[in-house]
Amino acid sequence: MHEFNVKFILPGGFFIFKPSAKNVTVPKGTDLLTAAVKAGIVLNSPCGGEGVCGKCKVTLDEKRVLACETIVDKDLVVKIPKESLEIHEKTKAEAEEFTKGVVLKREDAYPYSPIVRKIFLKLAKPTADDNTSDLDRIYRELSGKVDSLHVSASVASVKFLSETLRDSDFQVTVTLGYKDGGFEIMAIEPGDTAGANYGFAFDIGTTTVVGQLINMNTRKILGTRIAFNRQAAYGSDVIARIVFASEPDGLEKTHKAVVSNINEIIEDLVDACNVNLGDVYSVTCAGNMTMMHLLLRIDPSSIRKPPYTPTTTVFSTMHLPEIGIDANPKGLVTFLPGVSTYIGGDIVSGLVACGVPDSGELALLVDIGTNGELVLGNSEWMIGTAASAGPAFEGSGLSCGMKAVKGAVQKVDIDAELNVRCATIGDVKPHGICGSGYIDLLRQMLKRGIIDKSGKINKGLGSKRIRQGEAVMEFVVAFKAESGIGKDIVINEDDIDNLKRSKGAIYSAIIALLTKVEKDIKEVKKIYIAGGFGNYLNIENAISIGLLPDIERTVYEFIGNSSLAGARMSLLSADALKRANEIYKNITYIDLSSEPSYMNEYIAALFFPHTDLGRFPSVRS
Amino acid sequence: MHEFNVKFILPGGFFIFKPSAKNVTVPKGTDLLTAAVKAGIVLNSPCGGEGVCGKCKVTLDEKRVLACETIVDKDLVVKIPKESLEIHEKTKAEAEEFTKGVVLKREDAYPYSPIVRKIFLKLAKPTADDNTSDLDRIYRELSGKVDSLHVSASVASVKFLSETLRDSDFQVTVTLGYKDGGFEIMAIEPGDTAGANYGFAFDIGTTTVVGQLINMNTRKILGTRIAFNRQAAYGSDVIARIVFASEPDGLEKTHKAVVSNINEIIEDLVDACNVNLGDVYSVTCAGNMTMMHLLLRIDPSSIRKPPYTPTTTVFSTMHLPEIGIDANPKGLVTFLPGVSTYIGGDIVSGLVACGVPDSGELALLVDIGTNGELVLGNSEWMIGTAASAGPAFEGSGLSCGMKAVKGAVQKVDIDAELNVRCATIGDVKPHGICGSGYIDLLRQMLKRGIIDKSGKINKGLGSKRIRQGEAVMEFVVAFKAESGIGKDIVINEDDIDNLKRSKGAIYSAIIALLTKVEKDIKEVKKIYIAGGFGNYLNIENAISIGLLPDIERTVYEFIGNSSLAGARMSLLSADALKRANEIYKNITYIDLSSEPSYMNEYIAALFFPHTDLGRFPSVRS
Repeated sequence: MHEFNVKFILPGGFFIFKPSAKNVTVPKGTDLLTAAVKAGIVLNSPCGGEGVCGKCKVTLDEKRVLACETIVDKDLVVKIPKESLEIHEKTKAEAEEFTKGVVLKREDAYPYSPIVRKIFLKLAKPTADDNTSDLDRIYRELSGKVDSLHVSASVASVKFLSETLRDSDFQVTVTLGYKDGGFEIMAIEPGDTAGANYGFAFDIGTTTVVGQLINMNTRKILGTRIAFNRQAAYGSDVIARIVFASEPDGLEKTHKAVVSNINEIIEDLVDACNVNLGDVYSVTCAGNMTMMHLLLRIDPSSIRKPPYTPTTTVFSTMHLPEIGIDANPKGLVTFLPGVSTYIGGDIVSGLVACGVPDSGELALLVDIGTNGELVLGNSEWMIGTAASAGPAFEGSGLSCGMKAVKGAVQKVDIDAELNVRCATIGDVKPHGICGSGYIDLLRQMLKRGIIDKSGKINKGLGSKRIRQGEAVMEFVVAFKAESGIGKDIVINEDDIDNLKRSKGAIYSAIIALLTKVEKDIKEVKKIYIAGGFGNYLNIENAISIGLLPDIERTVYEFIGNSSLAGARMSLLSADALKRANEIYKNITYIDLSSEPSYMNEYIAALFFPHTDLGRFPSVRS
Repeated sequence: MHEFNVKFILPGGFFIFKPSAKNVTVPKGTDLLTAAVKAGIVLNSPCGGEGVCGKCKVTLDEKRVLACETIVDKDLVVKIPKESLEIHEKTKAEAEEFTKGVVLKREDAYPYSPIVRKIFLKLAKPTADDNTSDLDRIYRELSGKVDSLHVSASVASVKFLSETLRDSDFQVTVTLGYKDGGFEIMAIEPGDTAGANYGFAFDIGTTTVVGQLINMNTRKILGTRIAFNRQAAYGSDVIARIVFASEPDGLEKTHKAVVSNINEIIEDLVDACNVNLGDVYSVTCAGNMTMMHLLLRIDPSSIRKPPYTPTTTVFSTMHLPEIGIDANPKGLVTFLPGVSTYIGGDIVSGLVACGVPDSGELALLVDIGTNGELVLGNSEWMIGTAASAGPAFEGSGLSCGMKAVKGAVQKVDIDAELNVRCATIGDVKPHGICGSGYIDLLRQMLKRGIIDKSGKINKGLGSKRIRQGEAVMEFVVAFKAESGIGKDIVINEDDIDNLKRSKGAIYSAIIALLTKVEKDIKEVKKIYIAGGFGNYLNIENAISIGLLPDIERTVYEFIGNSSLAGARMSLLSADALKRANEIYKNITYIDLSSEPSYMNEYIAALFFPHTDLGRFPSVRS
């Protein structure tokens, strides 16, 4: 087979990682979009490479072409313009501190019982009176060290045990991994290596993949990385990716894309933290149902066809090499279980993190990510739903939206003269606006009359910041000179409309769930808000735009990326993981589209804050 | 690398299988002993290829050479003389009916619960009101079909479940395999294939490998095959094989040798019985501790060094490809657990078969194979030991000994004129003498005064059958003209001595075990005799030579290959397998060499029947 080299020249810019050029060798006939993914570069391609969105433009021989339509038939040098990369670049390591999520009050709610543990044993040497088998000798010693563990060993793990024990003077470190409800001996190493035990927690999102390196002994978070999900090259949303995965090789490609994200994050963090890759024995993953199917190469096609049935919502623990994760080859990867197509392992993980299922009091989890998911209940019962909120509060689909990473506007103040002051993550010049920034911005615009309750921009205010944009009216948040991207940062009426629909969908889903069980919002003792807003969500502002109900502020608790937090807790506590495997069974899924009250609630919520101001007394006042 | 072709010309003879010549291609530098194994031919080589025993003679260019010392450096044609093959040939398929063992009274002692079961399901199709996941839909339907099963599924088994269900109109056959105490979904196939479910039970012996094909639905034994363990090329006993396995590649070679036995038996039987290899989902194996270590590629070196510690006595269930067994690649292989270096899974399997651990009455299992193992006890307690009996009763190490297969003398009558009448297995001319034949022969020789109580041949009887052999006196059982091998079949004083030591070791071990727990032989309500004698052991004769204690004959029950029987029962009943995994823990191993009474007992037993005739009242009379 003929193979050709493709050299991709990458543009400059603060998001861009080393190096500025990447080489890849691909077989003749490969399209440039696929070649780029192989080189670790994900081009914008929301249409999934169908040639219709026109977003994967690259420059070849001074001509602009679509990468998805260009075939490699010789060695090529391809220049990638900034706009073809913009939303999918791997973010910088410096973004770490803004993405690692909130450390929860409940972080230690479950006993410390790491799902992989290393135990140093000094064994009694065999004698004529004590010639029990080598493995039984280990079991015997373990039973004194670890309580009530069901421990088993595969044949592979004991093949050279005889030699290992005798060469190490019967002093060995046993690595135990939690699997199928018991512990399995993963490795037996000579000497004391118990100090080196690391794990990774992952939140596998449709838009982003977040990974966190944990020292399993000290329970410390050593570092966090976020990357845009490389599957974006095959479609921006889950539907497009399922369609792509149904094509020949599509499933394999989507699988490999996200595994490459995982491996890059692992490699990056072990390097940064001086950890030996071989000392990484455990990975936990939480993600939505489609992400889990694609990660595990399970045909996802029935997820998108009525009646929207996943193949499975529970995924057995596997060895890392089975899905291509590069760390200790004896290591285990464990998945948080999900409930249905619409309530995945990310939400169950979030429930473990916030504790709704462990409390006698009525509580609500609202996770605002690429979609919005909600679970209401207590230790007795739970009901859950998904709201078609869209990814606006993650910064997606908005003219200047971005994730809550360095450079994102996250706080906004507008004075009476309509001067704007922005605070950005990392205290740099603004590059865009993240979810919490938009919430502040909307509130300030409402306060200063820049927009009315329906979200229309008031043209009559006579500010240079209010102007006609390409298609609709817009408000300039930061002029080119103040911005970090060499152009104006704006919010326009389409953005506002998008945000309004998102907040309306979430608010009305909260009310519809309560209606379903005939409860009043005042009966809810705790509302956990999770999602990708950033770490500085202002609850007051979220209420004032009508995203959240107007109740006692102390009911609210912002918990950041709760999917990641639950994965982290499951890594450090087999009890947390066991709990996850109980609670998913107790959640009843409610289809809002079949709830008569929902559509009226939704339409009523398409105002700032709401058509019924009586529901927002503190906003009115 | 240079490779050369070696053509082996095999001698004629009833043991020889097609074809009479075998070709193999091997790299330059391979020795002929190894080349022969590759060609499926196992030459005698009790020294393990060290060049000292001189038993692997072959003819090359009209010269006799040792195969182990001859290197392949060009294409060769090698003639194999009969005597270099004699004890290790693969036996003929016709030997089957004489080797399948006894069908036990207890065959159905445990509930029918096959360790692999195939269940046809007609699933309700998903609807908006019932859109539970595909896998949960299967679990739900299974729970109505099979009681209280803990069922799990690996990710691999559900990858294409979505398509399988929808292409088959939701009518599928689920294959469940017993593993780690629960059932695992091994496969989900479209349509109803539940009728095709086959399994193999194996007894992996040091000398022979016996396999049996079972229809898992009808519980019928479809066929049995016996083959000489190919590891014999690397040493005739377990010690020689452990030594060999400690050399570079030795473990891999011994492993491959026995796996090739297993695969050949499987292939042979599925062909003969018209069974599809892909419908073979389950294999159970029982064997002694060394055989299990070698089969599973576990370093066995510590087994032969004081204090004789195996690596493990319990072996987790594996997928067939993990050890190279060729059948359904999703199939499982399960191993009967053992107790210690000297009491292996073959004995635990035998206990499941005979039921010592399930009875309130005191009972004894005596398994006379390549070694002799005994377990005494009841449902409350068990003690076990190994007697250094040697393989004489399996026909090994005797001048005309052979396994209990076609052509073996198994009954002997000698009249007052010392005329000998022999009955052979298969009613053909005699080829040799098997264990039960030797027992009869000794009894008749004692009766007619041909030997005295010490085993010396009486030269004074003046029969042409009594004569001086090469080194010692011998008695002709069948003259050349009557025999099927073109030469006289004899028993000599060395053979008699060998048999005397074997029977003495077993008898004295029985007494020593009883002494240990202060029980009298009369308190033993049942004695199960297992082993490779053949199917026609005459208990009366065994008592009369002093092999077994002189008690009520109805106490004895001959159960044949009980290791195979237990493996078969474990294939057809997960409960039997569970029982095996309980009982091995209840057996205490007794080292006879540290029992003060044992050596005296042994020396006293080196007479026919015994020095103390008071112990054999019925023989004296």
